[in-house]
Amino acid sequence: VSHRNDIDDHQQRGRRSGGTHADRTNRQKFVVLTEPALRRRPLEPVGDELRKALLIVTDYVCAVVDQLPMQSVTDFGGVQKLLADTVLRRMPQEDGRPLGELIELIDRAAAKGINTANGGLFGFVPGGGLVSAGIADLIADVLNRFTGQSTPAPGLVALETDILRWMSELFCLPTEARGILTTGTSMATLSALITARTSLLPNDFLRGVMYVTNQTHAHVAKAARLLGFLPEAVRIVGCDERQRMDPGALHAAVVADKAKGLLPFFVVASAGTTNTGAVDPMSAIADVAVIDGLWMHVDAAYGGFFQLTNRGKQRLRGVELADSIALDPHKGLFLPFGTGCLLVRNGQLLREAHSGGDPDYLQDLQGSPLPDFSDYGPELTRDFRGLRVWLPLHLHGVEAFRSALNEKLDLAQLAYEKLSAVSELIMLEPPDLSIIGFRMNSQAVAGGHDTAAGDEATAELLRRINAEGRVMLSSTRLSGRLVVRMCVLHHRADEAKVEEAIDAIQRHAADLRLDQFAATP
Amino acid sequence: VSHRNDIDDHQQRGRRSGGTHADRTNRQKFVVLTEPALRRRPLEPVGDELRKALLIVTDYVCAVVDQLPMQSVTDFGGVQKLLADTVLRRMPQEDGRPLGELIELIDRAAAKGINTANGGLFGFVPGGGLVSAGIADLIADVLNRFTGQSTPAPGLVALETDILRWMSELFCLPTEARGILTTGTSMATLSALITARTSLLPNDFLRGVMYVTNQTHAHVAKAARLLGFLPEAVRIVGCDERQRMDPGALHAAVVADKAKGLLPFFVVASAGTTNTGAVDPMSAIADVAVIDGLWMHVDAAYGGFFQLTNRGKQRLRGVELADSIALDPHKGLFLPFGTGCLLVRNGQLLREAHSGGDPDYLQDLQGSPLPDFSDYGPELTRDFRGLRVWLPLHLHGVEAFRSALNEKLDLAQLAYEKLSAVSELIMLEPPDLSIIGFRMNSQAVAGGHDTAAGDEATAELLRRINAEGRVMLSSTRLSGRLVVRMCVLHHRADEAKVEEAIDAIQRHAADLRLDQFAATP
Repeated sequence: VSHRNDIDDHQQRGRRSGGTHADRTNRQKFVVLTEPALRRRPLEPVGDELRKALLIVTDYVCAVVDQLPMQSVTDFGGVQKLLADTVLRRMPQEDGRPLGELIELIDRAAAKGINTANGGLFGFVPGGGLVSAGIADLIADVLNRFTGQSTPAPGLVALETDILRWMSELFCLPTEARGILTTGTSMATLSALITARTSLLPNDFLRGVMYVTNQTHAHVAKAARLLGFLPEAVRIVGCDERQRMDPGALHAAVVADKAKGLLPFFVVASAGTTNTGAVDPMSAIADVAVIDGLWMHVDAAYGGFFQLTNRGKQRLRGVELADSIALDPHKGLFLPFGTGCLLVRNGQLLREAHSGGDPDYLQDLQGSPLPDFSDYGPELTRDFRGLRVWLPLHLHGVEAFRSALNEKLDLAQLAYEKLSAVSELIMLEPPDLSIIGFRMNSQAVAGGHDTAAGDEATAELLRRINAEGRVMLSSTRLSGRLVVRMCVLHHRADEAKVEEAIDAIQRHAADLRLDQFAATP
Repeated sequence: VSHRNDIDDHQQRGRRSGGTHADRTNRQKFVVLTEPALRRRPLEPVGDELRKALLIVTDYVCAVVDQLPMQSVTDFGGVQKLLADTVLRRMPQEDGRPLGELIELIDRAAAKGINTANGGLFGFVPGGGLVSAGIADLIADVLNRFTGQSTPAPGLVALETDILRWMSELFCLPTEARGILTTGTSMATLSALITARTSLLPNDFLRGVMYVTNQTHAHVAKAARLLGFLPEAVRIVGCDERQRMDPGALHAAVVADKAKGLLPFFVVASAGTTNTGAVDPMSAIADVAVIDGLWMHVDAAYGGFFQLTNRGKQRLRGVELADSIALDPHKGLFLPFGTGCLLVRNGQLLREAHSGGDPDYLQDLQGSPLPDFSDYGPELTRDFRGLRVWLPLHLHGVEAFRSALNEKLDLAQLAYEKLSAVSELIMLEPPDLSIIGFRMNSQAVAGGHDTAAGDEATAELLRRINAEGRVMLSSTRLSGRLVVRMCVLHHRADEAKVEEAIDAIQRHAADLRLDQFAATP
């Protein structure tokens, strides 16, 4: 048995003019037809050449990870110049280029914007980027098994199935629950909505109505629109003073819609809103859902994996009553962007909504005790996503994730308490999970009580903090007012980084007070 | 500046009881709250530990690639035992496990089923799995930039934009064309259908009708169903004797539907069907589409990248007239599964259909000269897919891909010609691209002309070829008859592998003739 692979064979043959003896005799026709270029430029290195390429990548990955703590979290200078760089923007050429040179280009391209791998990121909902997940993707790509159905890759589909079962058990869903790994919560919600619609509105879905709050993530309305619902199908239910859905208002809205001849069928509860991390009262919403015949979908994209901690489990009480749950392992499990999950209590409904029939060209892939994932989502072919969840969980162990999530809850609490003592700030309520919000006290900055002045000072506070580049916060609007958000979720956001953020906020808030006082006549 | 990163800091601190001096004084509360486990089990290795992990992976990847040629393409023995293996199926535990041990498990899991990375795969539509794409994914995961919008990662979004432009230019689309990388053609078609519906049927889409043939891939009907179209919205148009859509029949069907008050709006032309690689007459279909006001979508999942070759360009003539084109770089560019693409002639329509509004929590991400990909597809967050296309194209050069695709056309032609000389076989027409089809000649095997006997013999031929494990073919049904398919597309499917397949087909066809004659009284 030869240890050379087929590409290697190609190279060997390419070095001789006219091909081997066998080529020249039996395979003349083929040799004439084929362009010789393939022999010179194979599509993949093997043996020592492959090892050399992987070592270059190893060096680069180590450098990226080791240099992260020294880097700014943002760099918006010179973006236009970067985008005008003709070397960077060169179209693929006929000839290849060395790997090292290309990695240098990638690194240059990545240098501008927001370094979302940096632990100083507290803006938006930070992602993670565990290296172990990257390792899993490399392995999955090289193995390149087809995991859209179970017959071609039973062992790997089993691993992904087990991860879905682990998540189902985490949320105390029944054994008939099934799920699918997606690229993120947008796709998970799309599939949840398709499932609910197929199940509850088989005929006349254009009279269907779904219920959200003004704090619900925008992807829900987008999913509704993509699926052909009219804008008026999305009803906004009122919140309490802490931005949580009011279950009484939900029930009242459903009753009113039913009276109009509409078909209420879907409610989205947020297990941690993007704005403030507020957790909707899921048990009470589930009660309404049962009484009113709604499918209760929980958007747990940001907050879901706090379920691994005792505090999180307490705060997410009621999530186990959901008909479906959307999760983002790329948030709470610190995985790279592009890792979402949908769990559905009655897995058969997910399958019925997405199963794609049995086309003739797949007739050789018979039944198996494992799920065919293509029957549980819109994709036939897709990445083997399971491995980037499976490997980190098994490699680091669940306790490492639980501890990290506990740390985020601690750190958010710490930040909340320290910032509550800053007189220039008005804090939102204490965090349900790990997002805190605050704005400048307009009384402190302008000697007045003007919302616009407060907004202006808050915007300036955010600008100054972010300009330092050590941490990054982001903003939102609540009740018409600008609010700075600090979301502690990055696995690299440790105590030192949080202290840096607190320090920057304190310093700039105090500076702003002085500046503004100076400006007041 | 310290070279230790935050996780390293954690470890350092963990080794001292009670934390640092700073911890004990200023941060007492935090130290008390946090569980100490994080210090013991960080979520990622750094420095030498990281390097060691990457070297383990390097060894594994090299072993996988180098051993591929010696391996069987299929192994279905012992699947039940594998699935019952309690070590493999163990749920994630509190404690982590060594990387080497886990990779061994992954390898064991991958060993069963179809080795879709093996060049002996001629069944279905083979994927590729270029190692360079795996390298790109590892880098993308570790950088973990947010590429759903352009402000956070302008340089990387530029790279992905350039790849989309390169593809648009390959298909001679106008400069206003835009695209999006997807996980595969299923998602690309879903977005194409959403775009056409939003553009052409803004109000009353339930009377909309779309047109396919019985050779169109099943994901089209599935996309229609997921989007809420009723089954009767998908009209099947007749084909010519070579399984290509009949444009006259298309026009007649549209006229008939319009007379019924329905709203014809969408036609799918296949640039290489999955069954036989037949290319629909796209220029003629485009004419009908213009006259009848249809959106012409081209499913170029399998065949699209033959556009890189002269022969392919000739055979795909008319593809440049499409309103949208779905492509699978995980097929014709040999990338790992999970790499699809949608191109839309009028990019603004794609954006209008998918743009998700401007939620408050994203208000800090202002406009940029680059596209925000989240406005061009259903996903907000997703993988940085561009790099797994960009890096292989730049690393190997376009010519390497062109040559490989020319080689596939050559090899399919070679196989067609050699098998045409085998008296036991009835061949389908010569391949439009790289799929050939054949069945056992029932006259040869049973001395009769019985379809069932021919089907039986064809099934047995396939069974015997695949049982050897050196190559794998698959089957389909055409005009009610079983047909064996041989799709030459894997980048590792070289001349030797094709010869192996031809040899196996010849041998078993001859054996079957003898067996059957022996069985005939």
